[in-house]
Amino acid sequence: MTTTPSAGASEESEEQSRSAQKRRAILDAATEIFLQKGYLATNMDEIAARAAVSKQTVYKNFPGKETLFIEIVSSVTTRAGDRVYDQMPEIAAGEDISEYLQRYAYRQLTVVLTRRVMQLRRLVIGEVGRFPELARALFDGGPKRAVATLALLFERLADRGLLAIDDPALAASQFNWLIMAEPLNRAMLLGDEAIPKPAELRRHAAAGVRMFLASYGKARRPKR
Amino acid sequence: MTTTPSAGASEESEEQSRSAQKRRAILDAATEIFLQKGYLATNMDEIAARAAVSKQTVYKNFPGKETLFIEIVSSVTTRAGDRVYDQMPEIAAGEDISEYLQRYAYRQLTVVLTRRVMQLRRLVIGEVGRFPELARALFDGGPKRAVATLALLFERLADRGLLAIDDPALAASQFNWLIMAEPLNRAMLLGDEAIPKPAELRRHAAAGVRMFLASYGKARRPKR
Repeated sequence: MTTTPSAGASEESEEQSRSAQKRRAILDAATEIFLQKGYLATNMDEIAARAAVSKQTVYKNFPGKETLFIEIVSSVTTRAGDRVYDQMPEIAAGEDISEYLQRYAYRQLTVVLTRRVMQLRRLVIGEVGRFPELARALFDGGPKRAVATLALLFERLADRGLLAIDDPALAASQFNWLIMAEPLNRAMLLGDEAIPKPAELRRHAAAGVRMFLASYGKARRPKR
Repeated sequence: MTTTPSAGASEESEEQSRSAQKRRAILDAATEIFLQKGYLATNMDEIAARAAVSKQTVYKNFPGKETLFIEIVSSVTTRAGDRVYDQMPEIAAGEDISEYLQRYAYRQLTVVLTRRVMQLRRLVIGEVGRFPELARALFDGGPKRAVATLALLFERLADRGLLAIDDPALAASQFNWLIMAEPLNRAMLLGDEAIPKPAELRRHAAAGVRMFLASYGKARRPKR
């Protein structure tokens, strides 16, 4: 053997990195074109041209338009879910439960209510008939995961005596939709410009948490 | 004048009725085809063939595919809204406020969560980029109208001392989304088969009303 292993390994890793770059370029190009034109009007030639790769390279990475679409939706959904999940802080010592839940709600709102997520969500909903498995992936990685995460959190908070909850799954679903539904529906139907501004989202989160704690808070709410 | 006026009127009204029938047939055919194929893949030739009228007749009634689409979405949305609004009962003498609100919530759920409304809603959301005015019509005739109707109802109930509400618009929005969001999101993403069954909708309505009354009920809820 005259070739050094390190030279071979380095060539191999350069090759891998070029491949990964091309794959990334294809995904970015496809995302732009899908969002701009819709699923049906998008074709692989245009994706290849926009990504500046050959059509063969596109097909080597993704056997078809459908696989590419699924990959995009899954990765955007998973990334948004990961952001909510990974950045979930524990409640600070002495922190008010209401403030903690408002912080949680606000973070979830800002992670989900982005142009990119809203555009993909509209596209996926419009294609439920053709691609039920795609919408299922968005459902599982989106609201279902969010509610399951909240249920576990509420169990921990109930165990610590900070909430009074008999049915964590129900409480989690109610919290999730009290917080998400109104602005999400607004953005779905009225477009990206209708995504509420931060101050509005904070007010909305505070009102949702107030209602949630009237049912599940430990301390008696002051009576109106 | 030898022709009798009644004969002329009758011919005219027969002509009107034939026109109305054709218009109805075009709308029905177009609805089926839009829902089946999506907006982009639908064309006027196919609509004419399915409605068994000439293409000229289609164009005489609707200048283009877009007008036809708007007419369909508006009429389905308006009909659903009318059903919620027109069938809204006053609270019966001696009726429990919780039961009354559960009836209200259940009726709204069953009017909105139909296959036809869900399919159109998906189609409209998928086309927000191309037809923002269409989604705006669905927003105005759907959730916005529902929340405004609820706000007026809650004002009346508060005036009668049955609810304790400072901000009827906020309470209306919270009620609406506590009730509608979870099953609506499920049906949007998981398809028509995921529309919950009546027993499930009643349980869901009861849980939403319980949470609503913990914030806005007059009587103290029994403490858990």
